[in-house]
Amino acid sequence: MSNILITGAAVLTMEGNNSIINDGEIAVAGDRIISVGKRGSAPASFKADKIIDASGMAAMPGFINAHTHSSMTLLRGYADDLPLMKWLNEKIWPLEKKMQKEDFYWGAMLCCLEMIKSGTTTFADMYFEMDQVARAVAQSGMRACLSRGMIGNGPDADLAIEESTQFVDKWHGAAGGRITTMFGPHAAYTCPPDYLALVAEMSAGYGVGLHIHVAETADEVEKIKAEYGTTPVRHLDSLGLFNVPVLAAHCVHLDQEEIEILASKMVAVVHCPESNMKLASGIAPVAGLIKAGVDVALGTDGAASNNNLDMIEEMRTAAMLQKVATGDPTVLLAYETLKMATYNGATALGLGDLGQLQPGRLADLILVDLRRPHLYPRHDLAAHLVYAAHSADVDTVIINGEIVMEGRKVLTMDEEEVMAQAQKCADRLVGKEQ
Amino acid sequence: MSNILITGAAVLTMEGNNSIINDGEIAVAGDRIISVGKRGSAPASFKADKIIDASGMAAMPGFINAHTHSSMTLLRGYADDLPLMKWLNEKIWPLEKKMQKEDFYWGAMLCCLEMIKSGTTTFADMYFEMDQVARAVAQSGMRACLSRGMIGNGPDADLAIEESTQFVDKWHGAAGGRITTMFGPHAAYTCPPDYLALVAEMSAGYGVGLHIHVAETADEVEKIKAEYGTTPVRHLDSLGLFNVPVLAAHCVHLDQEEIEILASKMVAVVHCPESNMKLASGIAPVAGLIKAGVDVALGTDGAASNNNLDMIEEMRTAAMLQKVATGDPTVLLAYETLKMATYNGATALGLGDLGQLQPGRLADLILVDLRRPHLYPRHDLAAHLVYAAHSADVDTVIINGEIVMEGRKVLTMDEEEVMAQAQKCADRLVGKEQ
Repeated sequence: MSNILITGAAVLTMEGNNSIINDGEIAVAGDRIISVGKRGSAPASFKADKIIDASGMAAMPGFINAHTHSSMTLLRGYADDLPLMKWLNEKIWPLEKKMQKEDFYWGAMLCCLEMIKSGTTTFADMYFEMDQVARAVAQSGMRACLSRGMIGNGPDADLAIEESTQFVDKWHGAAGGRITTMFGPHAAYTCPPDYLALVAEMSAGYGVGLHIHVAETADEVEKIKAEYGTTPVRHLDSLGLFNVPVLAAHCVHLDQEEIEILASKMVAVVHCPESNMKLASGIAPVAGLIKAGVDVALGTDGAASNNNLDMIEEMRTAAMLQKVATGDPTVLLAYETLKMATYNGATALGLGDLGQLQPGRLADLILVDLRRPHLYPRHDLAAHLVYAAHSADVDTVIINGEIVMEGRKVLTMDEEEVMAQAQKCADRLVGKEQ
Repeated sequence: MSNILITGAAVLTMEGNNSIINDGEIAVAGDRIISVGKRGSAPASFKADKIIDASGMAAMPGFINAHTHSSMTLLRGYADDLPLMKWLNEKIWPLEKKMQKEDFYWGAMLCCLEMIKSGTTTFADMYFEMDQVARAVAQSGMRACLSRGMIGNGPDADLAIEESTQFVDKWHGAAGGRITTMFGPHAAYTCPPDYLALVAEMSAGYGVGLHIHVAETADEVEKIKAEYGTTPVRHLDSLGLFNVPVLAAHCVHLDQEEIEILASKMVAVVHCPESNMKLASGIAPVAGLIKAGVDVALGTDGAASNNNLDMIEEMRTAAMLQKVATGDPTVLLAYETLKMATYNGATALGLGDLGQLQPGRLADLILVDLRRPHLYPRHDLAAHLVYAAHSADVDTVIINGEIVMEGRKVLTMDEEEVMAQAQKCADRLVGKEQ
């Protein structure tokens, strides 16, 4: 780790208002930001090992993708335009059964590569063979909050408990603190009540949160109603699940009282608009959740249902979708949407040191090159980043004080090798000759 | 003009089924495609002046952006997250009043630059000072179908008639055939019935189509109902407007009978999902329109309400939005959406020689570089292009047989100058010092 000085950027600190420091300067020492201000504001004693001229660029916190299934990146474009259960039963699950350790690893590597190239610095993941995902995270230089998915009504229910505790023991705080963990009970419809209650106890005991799918589809709500006579949020609340920190993905189908339960129990919701749209699951009541005071973060979900891991695109879709869904163009303002993709995600993942550019916080930040035709003329930076920018505009990515991408070149991974190995794995999975 | 041979691409001809020619070859002579097939399929007599190695790329028809307001690109990000009438009355219209000839020109230049860089080869435009737009189109190498906007209930109603006929006379078929024209009556709520009937007659007399906004908002429908006792589509039909070729932008608020009127009168509809979402106008019944046999093209609308001119993004939004709006993930398949953005647009603009890669058709095509992490692994090309690709993946753009972008470098315009001039114009408009 070294001292980095970034000069000349338009700095969007995300400190609660949409203010920009033009011709700004950010000093990074080790894994921390030590100063943020106008050019020349770094302490006189600060000696930079590396100076980045960021003129013409915006500096902002890296994106936090709060719900993904990293290794599913191998299944991108394998099955599209299908109803959810047909998609799962006939396409996704049969292929997942064939996946071997190397597939999980290269799938996660491809996921990390794509995320770095699109400005994501942290992600929250739930999948299987998580040791392979953790290896990829460690190597790529990313930050991640990882959960071993637990299917409580499946044959591996007990194994999932065992592997999950081992995983938390082994990886929580690993890779220089870049890896944290949560327990990952898949959903209320795939985990029986006693199983969920047990996982909630484990979560309290280990002091780590829970990552779970909640009310993603109308079908799920019907199933829970039929089985337990109540809705998913009320059901989970009654099991004591919300007494620990919960990262609740989707939350598409909620009534007003459930929104208030989520708010009062400080459950963090991850909005995944593109996956919900593509699978025709529905539109989450994001404006209502925010109004009720719920911490709403943003996620892409897996690349099998998105089909990319692009947080800039996800922000734009989130903002536009909520406007048309509510009939109110003033909901999800550009700046509010940027906050969802950064600060709110940090809070949701229990990583309070992220999400803002501020002295003392961890140095996870990106530089976005504004010298592109689609970002001219410049009127409002937040609007440009949400409504006009592309992920390919991300020029530089710094995570934990390390430069992992510079001038769009990823420094921590061999891009060609990752793409080739991912293709090789995918070809074998679908039975193509190599 | 010269002979170009493109080799090694995965060729998506868009000839009615989702078939790919892998390791394909396309020969272009002058402004036309003369052969499309496997590598080595070009006629033995064909002598290439230029060979493009497109290994690792997809070749497909260029995108056709069927509804834009080019010079409004200067207003990108100037006013966001506002209700439509406040946005127009307090922000957009006051600024438009200040716009001078050079603003229209540099706004259109910026628009053309952004479109070329994102793979659009043709656009349908409606705005003012269209001589300036035509100049920009001629210079940029793009193809465009241009209309002088006509506000029939405004002070310039007669001037608009005069300038529109002059514009059609002067520019239809200009720039080597790259420029065509239509008449541009703005909408049923801004043009009185006799004015619309007159424009329809002019359209028939001149043999050019009409470009008009139709049923964009619920407000518009209410206004027309209050004034004429019927809905916009029925009103326009009763005036004889649909007896000439019509490009009807938006068509958000339609009933089933109106959908059938549009189908039977062969009115082409331009779906503009992102603008409709951002302004909270509503969701057009695209699946229903397609089912009824309507030619549905795709457009971005102006950059003031989008806020970019990115057709790949627009395709993805169109497909995902229609799935969630109908609750059916099987509507707007990836390939069908690609067709909206290419072939359907060609038909809608009356440019039947575009939209497919076929011998004899005009050589408007793009190469998309697939060697990007977010496009791995490769399972289905159409799904990748619609659901995962970014506009920055477009590597090469050929329009009318001329290479206008190669390796992402635009050859027909000085990119730096266009961005700088656009900023200068925008700064003057909003009263910033220069």
